[in-house]
Amino acid sequence: MTTPMPAFDSGIAADLLERLRRKAPRVHCITNAVAQHFTANVLLALGAIPSMTIAPEEVAAFAAGADALLVNLGMLDDTRRAAIPKAVEAAKAAVKPFVLDPVFVNRSPVRCSYAQELLTASPTVLRANRDELAALYPGQDSFEAFAGTSVTLAMTGAEDMVAGPGGTLRLANGHPLLARVTATGCAGGAVIAAFLSVSDDPVQAAAAALTVFNVAGEMAAERARGPGTLVPELLDALYLIDAPQIADRLKRI
Amino acid sequence: MTTPMPAFDSGIAADLLERLRRKAPRVHCITNAVAQHFTANVLLALGAIPSMTIAPEEVAAFAAGADALLVNLGMLDDTRRAAIPKAVEAAKAAVKPFVLDPVFVNRSPVRCSYAQELLTASPTVLRANRDELAALYPGQDSFEAFAGTSVTLAMTGAEDMVAGPGGTLRLANGHPLLARVTATGCAGGAVIAAFLSVSDDPVQAAAAALTVFNVAGEMAAERARGPGTLVPELLDALYLIDAPQIADRLKRI
Amino acid sequence: MTTPMPAFDSGIAADLLERLRRKAPRVHCITNAVAQHFTANVLLALGAIPSMTIAPEEVAAFAAGADALLVNLGMLDDTRRAAIPKAVEAAKAAVKPFVLDPVFVNRSPVRCSYAQELLTASPTVLRANRDELAALYPGQDSFEAFAGTSVTLAMTGAEDMVAGPGGTLRLANGHPLLARVTATGCAGGAVIAAFLSVSDDPVQAAAAALTVFNVAGEMAAERARGPGTLVPELLDALYLIDAPQIADRLKRI
Repeated sequence: MTTPMPAFDSGIAADLLERLRRKAPRVHCITNAVAQHFTANVLLALGAIPSMTIAPEEVAAFAAGADALLVNLGMLDDTRRAAIPKAVEAAKAAVKPFVLDPVFVNRSPVRCSYAQELLTASPTVLRANRDELAALYPGQDSFEAFAGTSVTLAMTGAEDMVAGPGGTLRLANGHPLLARVTATGCAGGAVIAAFLSVSDDPVQAAAAALTVFNVAGEMAAERARGPGTLVPELLDALYLIDAPQIADRLKRI
Repeated sequence: MTTPMPAFDSGIAADLLERLRRKAPRVHCITNAVAQHFTANVLLALGAIPSMTIAPEEVAAFAAGADALLVNLGMLDDTRRAAIPKAVEAAKAAVKPFVLDPVFVNRSPVRCSYAQELLTASPTVLRANRDELAALYPGQDSFEAFAGTSVTLAMTGAEDMVAGPGGTLRLANGHPLLARVTATGCAGGAVIAAFLSVSDDPVQAAAAALTVFNVAGEMAAERARGPGTLVPELLDALYLIDAPQIADRLKRI
Repeated sequence: MTTPMPAFDSGIAADLLERLRRKAPRVHCITNAVAQHFTANVLLALGAIPSMTIAPEEVAAFAAGADALLVNLGMLDDTRRAAIPKAVEAAKAAVKPFVLDPVFVNRSPVRCSYAQELLTASPTVLRANRDELAALYPGQDSFEAFAGTSVTLAMTGAEDMVAGPGGTLRLANGHPLLARVTATGCAGGAVIAAFLSVSDDPVQAAAAALTVFNVAGEMAAERARGPGTLVPELLDALYLIDAPQIADRLKRI
């Protein structure tokens, strides 16, 4: 059995970006405190409208009114534990996509159990790196275990892989300097959520999101002297990036 | 009955800024997690001294020792709900001004009720946009409802309006790129609090705060390529802005 | 009795920096919400790997797996109060260094009591300014009171002093513009923790950390127009700083 090859190219990425900018989707983010400010700025630079409350009393209203939801498990305290099920329930009731980002589950057993339970709520996309994915499926081949689910996987690393019902594709954009800035991965999860709000194909949406974010990262790294100047340059690049730049730089492997 | 025309010009704005820089007022901010870091940097760049704790056990000591208080209702969790009344009580006991910023009350009914209750504590200034103001006074003409109170209104938007016992004035500084950076509005509320600490006239203080912040935003936008480089440029501009720049750019309408 | 003069020069600072970059130590930080994002970026720029959770359920796993721990008492809410003893216990059980930074204990009596209790757990280094140190030892000569402990003191200010079992030394690097950026002191505490993970001599480690951070601050201030552009320049400088730059600029007094 061969894996189907999903349709994806720079034209699809640029088209989804254009739709995103026209729609200005609301993305509600439950994310860790380190990532909140940067994630909001990434979404705004891209053309989306972030909201970030984690207060259990009000999170359902925000999630229900949003076009997509991000659940990032960093800094998983009691407030976030109380908020997440309410937000997920509201998003699912409103038939809105949601992204699960189980950051650092490989370093915290209690967080890992929590993530495993959340996976049963069928996020639209799971964003994880290789270590996090392995922690979620201990003692198993994590790809095989995962393949049985309806969830689309966006596995990030030096190379990125997107795998879902529509097939599997590999991407190789990005820059090492991005790893010297906190929360770039977390913000990338929010970008996937934003793209899911303008596409019914989670593989294409996740691939477009990773491509736009990582190509912007390459453009920023060329202008930056180090990880400090990379941040404003990255936000500028997300604001300025256009179809020809995506076409020039997209690396599908 | 004609609305009185409050005294306000660039000389008043520059004089209050000069007083602020000499006094280096302490501004205690209860604000949302997305805005905390940027708000502190805005206050420091301007010449004020921020403190930001929301811990209910210690917030009264910080608010009592501060020259002004900001209460921003973003991300209104249990800790903030417990802290706010203590901080407001301490500020009022010390006869210090306080600013209420009911962000997103139009998106969260529970937050809106909370804001309506806080309004009875008579903040010195209410900062709100048109949608937030309408949510606070449902089924009424919000301006008329508001006019019966002793609170000064700083209504922000493409144009800003400041209305208080001393009259009403309209301002038109700012730049669209500011809306592509998170927490610029929230930080603006903290700047109003800082200016209230050097003036007994809340209309003049709020107008000066909005003018200085928005003129700095214009200066920054001219140097920035996008919303990323806007942030460091805005903080630099708040640090560098002087009386001639305010005089050149002030747009009262 | 003369105070011993600890061995410290730019070669030692550069050597510890080189070791830090090779080791890429994990530094777990319990710190205030204003400082979290900037502290993580400072550690990453320098070559360390930050983790920042304050959730009591998972903090022990992170602290036990880290090479050093920072406990910063800013914004000391219930979650942090519950997390700190668990993190300290885990660090001590794993024989890992820990830094205590009692920010603003001079402004909050309840926070001061908490810090006094934590001092009995013998942090490797106490970072404090003169006012904070005085608050910790009321009615006493704080230096004399402190000298009886095994803790190394890193007292920061216009000039810095490092005092420990190995003796006392004074340093004079830095730039006034650093005080116009929030959380530079808090991030400095995390840098001390990172250097403690590559040295058994807490006086040398703290002196190297302050030197590298403050020399990077000087380099950044020369390129910045104000406190806004200082931030990206500081992170770039921490990433780029090398042995000759440290040798050129180190000011031991």
